[in-house]
Amino acid sequence: MLIVMSPEATADQVEDVLKLVRELGFKPHPMPGATRTAIGVTGNSGPIDPSHFEFMPGVGEAIRVSKPYKLVGRDLKHEDSVVKVGEFTIGGPIPAIIAGPCAVESFEQTMEIAETVAACGVNFFRGGAFKPRTSPYSFQGLGEEGLKILAEVRNKFGMRIVTEVLDQENVDLVEEYADVLQIGARNMQNFTLLRRVGQAKKPVLLKRGMSATLDELLLAAEYIMSEGNYDVILCERGVRTFADHTRNTLDLSIVPAVQGLSHLPIIVDPSHGTGRRDKVTPLARAAIAVGADGIMIEVHTHPERALSDGPQALLPDMFVKLVEEVRSIHKVLEKNEGAS
Amino acid sequence: MLIVMSPEATADQVEDVLKLVRELGFKPHPMPGATRTAIGVTGNSGPIDPSHFEFMPGVGEAIRVSKPYKLVGRDLKHEDSVVKVGEFTIGGPIPAIIAGPCAVESFEQTMEIAETVAACGVNFFRGGAFKPRTSPYSFQGLGEEGLKILAEVRNKFGMRIVTEVLDQENVDLVEEYADVLQIGARNMQNFTLLRRVGQAKKPVLLKRGMSATLDELLLAAEYIMSEGNYDVILCERGVRTFADHTRNTLDLSIVPAVQGLSHLPIIVDPSHGTGRRDKVTPLARAAIAVGADGIMIEVHTHPERALSDGPQALLPDMFVKLVEEVRSIHKVLEKNEGAS
Amino acid sequence: MLIVMSPEATADQVEDVLKLVRELGFKPHPMPGATRTAIGVTGNSGPIDPSHFEFMPGVGEAIRVSKPYKLVGRDLKHEDSVVKVGEFTIGGPIPAIIAGPCAVESFEQTMEIAETVAACGVNFFRGGAFKPRTSPYSFQGLGEEGLKILAEVRNKFGMRIVTEVLDQENVDLVEEYADVLQIGARNMQNFTLLRRVGQAKKPVLLKRGMSATLDELLLAAEYIMSEGNYDVILCERGVRTFADHTRNTLDLSIVPAVQGLSHLPIIVDPSHGTGRRDKVTPLARAAIAVGADGIMIEVHTHPERALSDGPQALLPDMFVKLVEEVRSIHKVLEKNEGAS
Amino acid sequence: MLIVMSPEATADQVEDVLKLVRELGFKPHPMPGATRTAIGVTGNSGPIDPSHFEFMPGVGEAIRVSKPYKLVGRDLKHEDSVVKVGEFTIGGPIPAIIAGPCAVESFEQTMEIAETVAACGVNFFRGGAFKPRTSPYSFQGLGEEGLKILAEVRNKFGMRIVTEVLDQENVDLVEEYADVLQIGARNMQNFTLLRRVGQAKKPVLLKRGMSATLDELLLAAEYIMSEGNYDVILCERGVRTFADHTRNTLDLSIVPAVQGLSHLPIIVDPSHGTGRRDKVTPLARAAIAVGADGIMIEVHTHPERALSDGPQALLPDMFVKLVEEVRSIHKVLEKNEGAS
Repeated sequence: MLIVMSPEATADQVEDVLKLVRELGFKPHPMPGATRTAIGVTGNSGPIDPSHFEFMPGVGEAIRVSKPYKLVGRDLKHEDSVVKVGEFTIGGPIPAIIAGPCAVESFEQTMEIAETVAACGVNFFRGGAFKPRTSPYSFQGLGEEGLKILAEVRNKFGMRIVTEVLDQENVDLVEEYADVLQIGARNMQNFTLLRRVGQAKKPVLLKRGMSATLDELLLAAEYIMSEGNYDVILCERGVRTFADHTRNTLDLSIVPAVQGLSHLPIIVDPSHGTGRRDKVTPLARAAIAVGADGIMIEVHTHPERALSDGPQALLPDMFVKLVEEVRSIHKVLEKNEGAS
Repeated sequence: MLIVMSPEATADQVEDVLKLVRELGFKPHPMPGATRTAIGVTGNSGPIDPSHFEFMPGVGEAIRVSKPYKLVGRDLKHEDSVVKVGEFTIGGPIPAIIAGPCAVESFEQTMEIAETVAACGVNFFRGGAFKPRTSPYSFQGLGEEGLKILAEVRNKFGMRIVTEVLDQENVDLVEEYADVLQIGARNMQNFTLLRRVGQAKKPVLLKRGMSATLDELLLAAEYIMSEGNYDVILCERGVRTFADHTRNTLDLSIVPAVQGLSHLPIIVDPSHGTGRRDKVTPLARAAIAVGADGIMIEVHTHPERALSDGPQALLPDMFVKLVEEVRSIHKVLEKNEGAS
Repeated sequence: MLIVMSPEATADQVEDVLKLVRELGFKPHPMPGATRTAIGVTGNSGPIDPSHFEFMPGVGEAIRVSKPYKLVGRDLKHEDSVVKVGEFTIGGPIPAIIAGPCAVESFEQTMEIAETVAACGVNFFRGGAFKPRTSPYSFQGLGEEGLKILAEVRNKFGMRIVTEVLDQENVDLVEEYADVLQIGARNMQNFTLLRRVGQAKKPVLLKRGMSATLDELLLAAEYIMSEGNYDVILCERGVRTFADHTRNTLDLSIVPAVQGLSHLPIIVDPSHGTGRRDKVTPLARAAIAVGADGIMIEVHTHPERALSDGPQALLPDMFVKLVEEVRSIHKVLEKNEGAS
Repeated sequence: MLIVMSPEATADQVEDVLKLVRELGFKPHPMPGATRTAIGVTGNSGPIDPSHFEFMPGVGEAIRVSKPYKLVGRDLKHEDSVVKVGEFTIGGPIPAIIAGPCAVESFEQTMEIAETVAACGVNFFRGGAFKPRTSPYSFQGLGEEGLKILAEVRNKFGMRIVTEVLDQENVDLVEEYADVLQIGARNMQNFTLLRRVGQAKKPVLLKRGMSATLDELLLAAEYIMSEGNYDVILCERGVRTFADHTRNTLDLSIVPAVQGLSHLPIIVDPSHGTGRRDKVTPLARAAIAVGADGIMIEVHTHPERALSDGPQALLPDMFVKLVEEVRSIHKVLEKNEGAS
């Protein structure tokens, strides 16, 4: 921590700060400057709460230097984490593709989409059985019936199932059926739910909240890991900004930013990130080009009849083309990686 | 709904849209323009999902016109709602003041602060027994012990207790002790929790999410009301923006905006809204001047030792002055109201 | 400046940083910590560019501590500045009210509005003769003819004139007619224009840019002052956020934030800040309650015929009531100020 | 335009709106609904100002349907525009690469960087001779001397020169030396400057403002085109959001959004868009993958000594690798384009 005194701070006020630093068991390093004194603080094992100092007379600012997370950080574990999901992985050399409808609506709809998706060699199938909806009057998902349909997809097509959990209680249920438990953006700071999936035996896909900073996203992952579940996959899905040409603003720069600080894999969801079908393919290509560990794509054979988020679902032929493009782009990265 | 065709739409494409509108049981109103045709849709009882049309060839845009909420709106109930909390009210002619520490830390700390607050004639005491914290390593609250301390405050000082609920399970517990159940900003779209407090017998204080739009805030309240609990109080507590001079950007314009659309009372929390002690008093005055139904203020007798959010807590003498100022400002509004 | 080394930094890398600090003429203060070393830098008269260090091997972060502005800051001039405009002032004990139409549209329109405004005892009249419009096809103002009408308002009603300048060239012209030169939000970082009004003999009203940080606003004022014009008034007029219930989000917290760092007066424009008539009065009251040095309000006798921004202009009777309310609220603040 | 009456609107109020629509020369289409009446308006050649109606009693909302721009839109010109710059083009099948230092600092520095860049087969060289700086105390550029150095780069290496213009006056000067006139983000709504470059004989590179919407960007281009200069290239360079892991948030989704509405080429500047060297390469790859018509990259042989924006400049070897990668990614897109 660095404590910056205000220019009018008296010598006594500086002394009081030094004293408190020592009382808290840390070591102060006073640095008198031309207009103001700064005091470095060392000897702390974790971050120090700036509020201890900010209130003190003569203190201008207290600036945190240490990062508040541990388990998610590269300081603790340098090499990239690879999350195993059955026989497949997320975070390894090949980017993962997770595809399927926004919601499981019926057996027929789900199987039809699964067939399309599986035909592209996709390993992960997505589909919501429990849907968090902005309005209480919107379709809320099929519940356990939906989970059974998803299990059927796994049996028939061999794809691993990614599906959302909404609360502690349905984690018990979803855990029986799914391969990856998804935490939606609205629940990124539902700490009870984070702790619960931290005790689960299945990997967790954690979506970034709509206005979550990088630190908040990493601390949400830290909640899960602090309960013992180290299989966490992060997911960028667009943030809230003033921009109105897409539903959310997809922030691809968080991919290299996460990769710099954390060993966890990070994927991108351009379907929610843009909310419009015609922007999903270009931004899926961009997600792979930026270096993401995978993409999550909504596909629907009849988006006009979809019970949620139809306008962002790709039609089967658009999806087939997208898979080809992202695989070709990934080859470029791979080759250059090898070359360097 | 208004469907705007693209300039290149063919007559057949327009005809297809008209047909689908009729099939869905609505009435189309085609309006041919110089460059493009627009089609009004009527006959719907609630909002129509634009995705039915957006995918169709020739359609440029589908614009929603009806509001998606019912129970919270003034269309259904024109007069202002007044929420009863024991012998007191929130939403009536006198703005409510809710004050206390961020977290209940100990019996002594809580009683000391309660005494200060009660001496100002404040009717509502706040304090967290269960704390949602960004880091898993931060103080998480005293739990039931904290609730017992809060109940003691009610017994001794006659103030009504406002405290946060974090998940379904602790609603059962908190309901026994508290007078108002608070939903924090991070849980504004925790729909499971919203439904659960919608079944509770206590009023709910619903805080606006960090990047929630006005519609999303009202729909979150709709979730609670749709379960039968009509005693909902909204609360503005600052939103996420690029601005870095306060922790959040307090959006006071939402107060008149809510009051225009909804009958529910709305209060303001300038403590979280600014995150800095020196800005709490000016923004509390502003909140009353803008017409809010109350304010929620963090007070601490020893903020430097607070276990959470110390830098935003007012000292007792600052709080005493604030209460005087906001009461005087409210008198100005009241007088002018009477005069008009 | 504080340089934080990364945890893996070698002793040699730390040494290289210390060496460069000394070469640049500053004094390094190394502080070895448990996981990483931090290096304080003193001896600089102004801010140091972090880029000197950020590129170096082993450096994690370089954190700026000194503020980049001088003339606008309270470090240099502690007491509040009061800007004289003819016989009136902005920044003194009485909040200034600046009112008038968005644009000068005609002699009759302007005189009619001026009469209404003057009757309330308002000292400053606003009205645009040169209008910055988002579309090239919108009304762009009457130009010099508009300035002549404004001069007529001053002659007839004794109010001082505030009007916008758009570029270097029209500063020459506007300076002849106006009493205060307004820089609009879109021009807050038009540095050529800032320098030009810095050489003018008239006070400058500088509006905050739509996404300007506090530092950027103060540095824009620094540009003007660095050319010798010390009569600068700042103005908050709303910023861009995701919120869609007002045209902009009025950020009243910047008022106490500016007052903490700078001696310059700051006023608030709730007309542009909200963009909707029904929110102007509540937010004007809030602006005074937060402690602003004045407000700027758009008034129109026939807003439905206004050539720009009609929906945010107050009708005369609404304005009369607003003036009463804000004066009463100001009395409350004044009385409490006296008491403290 | 669509006018939505409020639920309480009386028949007379509806009639008044219909009357005004007719008086303004348009055709009203009333559509009575279950709870409220909507009125479509047709017969207008351009957009109608909603303020004509918003003030009227009984009107809930007036929703604009027509787009406010003409010349930039695909309605007027369907095929993509290709901007000629000497013997090269921007907007054609091959993405343009524009590279060079942030600022021209000296003859030697510029030539050294130019040599590096030219060796990669880059056709466009960038470098600022006039620099818009947030602080009046920062380096402001070499002025005409810088322009002469840039002209020398063109002579020696055959690259075309892109450089910024700050105000009307220096357009005269810059036009003599440069091949493309750049308008910076802070000047995107400096309408005087837009009109001036609209009269220039050189292509204009228009950067998106820090909080500009898609419509505002297109209308800024419309200002230039409305003066007769049709050679406009748009540029995304990051927007202001709450996110703090990059200097700005690069909004790649605006690329397909612009391409849907406008025929103008759009390029991406990941150097300013991220502000950090380690994120420039991944986001440059992403920009090409999303379909941008080019990228603009800052390169410096000695970024630690750069007078501005050193931390975002690539070192020569990083740039060489980036050029290879983006060309390979472009080939993937090209091949797939051909295949579809």
